[in-house]
Amino acid sequence: MIYVTRRATFSASHRLFNPALSEEENTNLYDKCSNPRGHGHNYILEVTVAGEPSKESGYVIDQKILKQIVHTEIIRRVDHKHLNEDVDFLRGIIPTTENLVREFWKILAPRIPSGKLYSIRLRETENNSVEYKGE
Amino acid sequence: MIYVTRRATFSASHRLFNPALSEEENTNLYDKCSNPRGHGHNYILEVTVAGEPSKESGYVIDQKILKQIVHTEIIRRVDHKHLNEDVDFLRGIIPTTENLVREFWKILAPRIPSGKLYSIRLRETENNSVEYKGE
Amino acid sequence: MIYVTRRATFSASHRLFNPALSEEENTNLYDKCSNPRGHGHNYILEVTVAGEPSKESGYVIDQKILKQIVHTEIIRRVDHKHLNEDVDFLRGIIPTTENLVREFWKILAPRIPSGKLYSIRLRETENNSVEYKGE
Amino acid sequence: MIYVTRRATFSASHRLFNPALSEEENTNLYDKCSNPRGHGHNYILEVTVAGEPSKESGYVIDQKILKQIVHTEIIRRVDHKHLNEDVDFLRGIIPTTENLVREFWKILAPRIPSGKLYSIRLRETENNSVEYKGE
Amino acid sequence: MIYVTRRATFSASHRLFNPALSEEENTNLYDKCSNPRGHGHNYILEVTVAGEPSKESGYVIDQKILKQIVHTEIIRRVDHKHLNEDVDFLRGIIPTTENLVREFWKILAPRIPSGKLYSIRLRETENNSVEYKGE
Amino acid sequence: MIYVTRRATFSASHRLFNPALSEEENTNLYDKCSNPRGHGHNYILEVTVAGEPSKESGYVIDQKILKQIVHTEIIRRVDHKHLNEDVDFLRGIIPTTENLVREFWKILAPRIPSGKLYSIRLRETENNSVEYKGE
Repeated sequence: MIYVTRRATFSASHRLFNPALSEEENTNLYDKCSNPRGHGHNYILEVTVAGEPSKESGYVIDQKILKQIVHTEIIRRVDHKHLNEDVDFLRGIIPTTENLVREFWKILAPRIPSGKLYSIRLRETENNSVEYKGE
Repeated sequence: MIYVTRRATFSASHRLFNPALSEEENTNLYDKCSNPRGHGHNYILEVTVAGEPSKESGYVIDQKILKQIVHTEIIRRVDHKHLNEDVDFLRGIIPTTENLVREFWKILAPRIPSGKLYSIRLRETENNSVEYKGE
Repeated sequence: MIYVTRRATFSASHRLFNPALSEEENTNLYDKCSNPRGHGHNYILEVTVAGEPSKESGYVIDQKILKQIVHTEIIRRVDHKHLNEDVDFLRGIIPTTENLVREFWKILAPRIPSGKLYSIRLRETENNSVEYKGE
Repeated sequence: MIYVTRRATFSASHRLFNPALSEEENTNLYDKCSNPRGHGHNYILEVTVAGEPSKESGYVIDQKILKQIVHTEIIRRVDHKHLNEDVDFLRGIIPTTENLVREFWKILAPRIPSGKLYSIRLRETENNSVEYKGE
Repeated sequence: MIYVTRRATFSASHRLFNPALSEEENTNLYDKCSNPRGHGHNYILEVTVAGEPSKESGYVIDQKILKQIVHTEIIRRVDHKHLNEDVDFLRGIIPTTENLVREFWKILAPRIPSGKLYSIRLRETENNSVEYKGE
Repeated sequence: MIYVTRRATFSASHRLFNPALSEEENTNLYDKCSNPRGHGHNYILEVTVAGEPSKESGYVIDQKILKQIVHTEIIRRVDHKHLNEDVDFLRGIIPTTENLVREFWKILAPRIPSGKLYSIRLRETENNSVEYKGE
């Protein structure tokens, strides 16, 4: 079993805001992350696929194909977007990194053509990141 | 002459948009950077002060003081903000990195207590950055 | 289950020295790391908490709170210190990275307010690091 | 149990090419990675050893010794080499990162003097890497 | 005057070899860098253009255009290539980083549509790089 | 003219302390940097040599030779040392980064065998660095 990781980046804005709470509760909960007009990040996404290398190619998964899937399914839809407003698959989701990786997982897991999706890591700033393994 | 550089970071959103142009002209000019609801970045700001080290301290400028000035004058006002809408000193400015460093320069240059402001570098993504030396 | 990681840094000096051994044995064991007057590093500490995101906040743990705990319990006590001499919770401990992460674990594990401490990683230089998962 | 990681780098060239396939099939499979005269990378190798720290030294494994083993057994034999042609232990192996980490594992696993080899990670570019844990 | 920098990467192999010298002289001069079958690197190219920002766009040069020029003129021609053998504009040139930046300069300088080419930096490994300013 | 940069690292401890001042004045001036038992850093040193590439070698200066000079003259004397106490050429010097680069310059400038020393940059943490050009 080999773990193959592909890294990609996107730049997006978001606002942490729970519509079930008042403005004041949102401010107490999210502080400056709930600024009404939003703020943004350069996100770094790391997608890891686990599997046995093919005897023919020596690849678990062709990195060109993995890159293309990550681009088409995720990056193209979130890059230079406002995550609360512009992204269909994030409607109704509070765009914390925790919630983002779970939504990314749902999209990517069934689309990996060889090996299996093992982990998604999302780095929001140089000081914070999350990882999700589908469990 | 020694050049002392302090690095700081902030996360902000912005939209590239020139109100003197039509929506279509803005899209032609700025492409995905003119998304109406904005997008964002983790900016890295590097402020360089040039001067002679003091005999007493061995410092050109005390890094604690430089850090505090950069924080109070810039970071506090742009971090977790929408650069087009939330920042008083950017009103009417198209927030390209080129324009940002010039506005940052105007604010910081008169506030450096020892040595002189020599350069401001602003990194918007891992692939693009600008530098301004006040000339 | 989502794994949330917070990164923090501190700068400290230390000396690798086992008082149960002679000076010569220490030099044989630790080489230049046993220099009597010490040497130092910029340490990078990565603290990972595992848990389910809250429905209300979308957070496993609020990064502001995690940052504050790491700062108060660890960084404030080791930053700009001599690890062998200045740090109460390291008395009698040889400050190898292996021993540091175990002591950090004992302090942090009972203080994580939501989710559970999953891993502590400590990077001593760009070429060496350790990780501890409490087992 | 503590996980100790040592990082090392090497610069090498390679060509992805399966001699059981035709030139055209190789081009279809590997695209620009099958350029006949090869291309190259700065590889980053991260070797992780797991074990209990010794009471005497506070080390799982002395990093000086781990560095020396990684250098003698791997780096010295692949640095500034053509991986398809110059490296005895890679004869007949298609030098994908997946295959490289498995061959590195076979060499390193029996040579770790304290603790056990836990993981080998190999970074080929800033966007792709693989990890192998011997299973 | 603002300095705008675009970063791009390519992976290539090369051999340092002066055909006017004997094999032995080449080995004395270039050591392991003259390995006959070559070795390789992940090169990082940083292209800096200097100029006044346009009032209309706030750009010295549109980064999308700069990216495209760097890609078309340089990256596409050197990425996944053997620099001694596969690259027309490097025929007869010993591919040291010093020589590479001068050849890149000749190609890029006349093709910058706004502002002027100010500097080309090329990083060969994390420990060595060169910069050229056309003088 | 090409600018060639070599990067090297060292880990050292130091204390900022001016013996002409009282303990209290030192604390006021240097704050936590004047901790009596010291603290430490992983320093990154970047040495830049400027010159014309040789026609024979294509080098301004052989990086192997530059590496060796930097190692012998600087790294070997400061790595794993206490900068205030263990380093002959720093006796009586307050070890701020400003003062360190000037002392490094005095040692390196006369020893560069081809090209001329152009700049020394010293990074003390990820947030602060200094540069000196001999003027």
